[in-house]
Amino acid sequence: MIRRTFSTQPTVCVIPGDDAMPEVMAPTVALLRRLVPEIRFVEAICGREAQAQYGTPFPDVTREAIDNADCTLFGASGGPSRPILWYLRWHKETFINVRPVRWYPGYNSPLRNPERVDYVIARDNLEGMYPPREGDIAELSTLASSSSWWLPVPTDKAGAYSLKVNTDEQMERVANYACELALQRKAAGYPGKVTLGAKYSIQPKTDGRLRTLVKAAVAAHPGLSYEEYLIDDMARRLVAAPEALDVVLLGNEHGDILADVSSGTIGGLGLSPSGCYGEKYAYFEPVHGSAPDIAGKGIINPTAMILTGGLLLDYLGYNEQAETLAGAVAQVYREGRVLPVDQGGRASTSEFVFAVQDYLPA
Amino acid sequence: MIRRTFSTQPTVCVIPGDDAMPEVMAPTVALLRRLVPEIRFVEAICGREAQAQYGTPFPDVTREAIDNADCTLFGASGGPSRPILWYLRWHKETFINVRPVRWYPGYNSPLRNPERVDYVIARDNLEGMYPPREGDIAELSTLASSSSWWLPVPTDKAGAYSLKVNTDEQMERVANYACELALQRKAAGYPGKVTLGAKYSIQPKTDGRLRTLVKAAVAAHPGLSYEEYLIDDMARRLVAAPEALDVVLLGNEHGDILADVSSGTIGGLGLSPSGCYGEKYAYFEPVHGSAPDIAGKGIINPTAMILTGGLLLDYLGYNEQAETLAGAVAQVYREGRVLPVDQGGRASTSEFVFAVQDYLPA
Repeated sequence: MIRRTFSTQPTVCVIPGDDAMPEVMAPTVALLRRLVPEIRFVEAICGREAQAQYGTPFPDVTREAIDNADCTLFGASGGPSRPILWYLRWHKETFINVRPVRWYPGYNSPLRNPERVDYVIARDNLEGMYPPREGDIAELSTLASSSSWWLPVPTDKAGAYSLKVNTDEQMERVANYACELALQRKAAGYPGKVTLGAKYSIQPKTDGRLRTLVKAAVAAHPGLSYEEYLIDDMARRLVAAPEALDVVLLGNEHGDILADVSSGTIGGLGLSPSGCYGEKYAYFEPVHGSAPDIAGKGIINPTAMILTGGLLLDYLGYNEQAETLAGAVAQVYREGRVLPVDQGGRASTSEFVFAVQDYLPA
Repeated sequence: MIRRTFSTQPTVCVIPGDDAMPEVMAPTVALLRRLVPEIRFVEAICGREAQAQYGTPFPDVTREAIDNADCTLFGASGGPSRPILWYLRWHKETFINVRPVRWYPGYNSPLRNPERVDYVIARDNLEGMYPPREGDIAELSTLASSSSWWLPVPTDKAGAYSLKVNTDEQMERVANYACELALQRKAAGYPGKVTLGAKYSIQPKTDGRLRTLVKAAVAAHPGLSYEEYLIDDMARRLVAAPEALDVVLLGNEHGDILADVSSGTIGGLGLSPSGCYGEKYAYFEPVHGSAPDIAGKGIINPTAMILTGGLLLDYLGYNEQAETLAGAVAQVYREGRVLPVDQGGRASTSEFVFAVQDYLPA
């Protein structure tokens, strides 16, 4: 959502992803090319194909293609391409995951009043419970804080721990990004509100600290308002009162879970675009999986991938073209004649793409 | 949901809870007395009142009342009564939290087709992320497993950790309880299915271990089927495909979050009963908060508290009376003439209670 300005013709690294993903990546790139002919798309090998050719799912040529591009368009990983995803996230420090959640007429929502849904989730993309850091609970007896816990860990029993880790540095930049996003949305007519969901009541040192830093960030961005809910209540509100939301700020695991609830409210993961942004890099990936069950059938819904491509255009400064693309998708749904299978229609992937293309300028 | 048989007249400790909770506790106890006159209800002092009289929110007399009863009926805690809740949970080892999620006609659901919602959440009540165990990330450099992590913890930065802790012992009894619950439901006409939601893909030692133990428990209970979803997908399914669920097994924090999503799908926390069960004790508590904003107004929805009382009756073996009570509540909603404010009606707490009472046997 936050845009960068690139001086020359930008380069985008394209990584098709696993299973059914190439089926939506190819037509999406075609649409983007049509809208902005000067973008240079460079496809990089990945997954099983890379494994066969280079003996690794993430060969040097792919890393170089990522490094040499301004950003990456990534199809979902079904396992084999996961090392690439980890590189894009932790090596490139794309610290925030932004997921616009908006219902358009024609989306097959399970809600009675889905027209109320139009907000953005801004989620920590680097810390919290992911990446995993686990071990045996017997190790925990050495921790200095253990004597202060209300209930000690039963280190004599068989069991394991998993760490949630939050640094001030990461929480601060996530908070500031969410504030900038809210200001940007406010300029476009939204309320300009940051809503935090976290378990600050129970976890004062991690989620409580996040709350403190988010409140400070909001205070440092005049014009914004602030709300907070315990994470369980926040999750409920996505279903019960989505109309009150503008920018929703969440920790990594909380955001992982709640963003899927949000996708559920508009009609499914097949409709949910996503962008991951850092100081110097960004990658764009639909949030659904790689859909191995329908790979090769030509029926995967390309909406999430196309709208993800729109976020990429927005990031590269092609804001008008991004709006044109989103508008064309909305038009196809509004008419309701050509709908993907997961939205109750019968259209194949390419039939849907052609319908979108018909609404783009010639 | 699992019933115990008590040989003599059972004793129930009643702890009204904070803020608006006494307003629903008193009429609920009156309904329960009417249905089962032989139950002995013993009210124990708590919260601000106990603080004023004994100098502590959790005096010895209250602990003795809990210990001397067969189970406890607890109003929600708004803070002051929290030490009592912790005693009921961790001291009494009430290891599992059971939350029936069922829509009745008249409930003000945000879903288009809420009649599909009829399942039970079985949630770890003791481990995982709660109780909190936090500290400074600098401490973590001493952990033996730290050398094996894909990404080290940046122990040189300002930051904190929070621990998720799972023992085999607790996961096994939660898994077995969920299986027994599924068998019990199967006998009543439900599918007899346990559905696990966890992040086993990313956290093999904690959630992956849970998955192994749950699969083993299901295999040891012939007649049950098993399904599993990553926790984010599980959360989405509560909104998108609730009709496929029977018994949903979740970790402590995951269950905390997802159960509120479930409440959201049927029409809110005011409708959601809950019971916490251990080997030797149980307590029953509605899942909503203590509603300080409407305390003293006489408009809090008593449905959750009344249905929670029904779970208590069920536990004590008064299964028929529990069904009568739930049926009376359902009848009031079906008719739709006397609805609480949070369900779009105008009825006060006591008007609603009287309407329920009118459907009980004289």
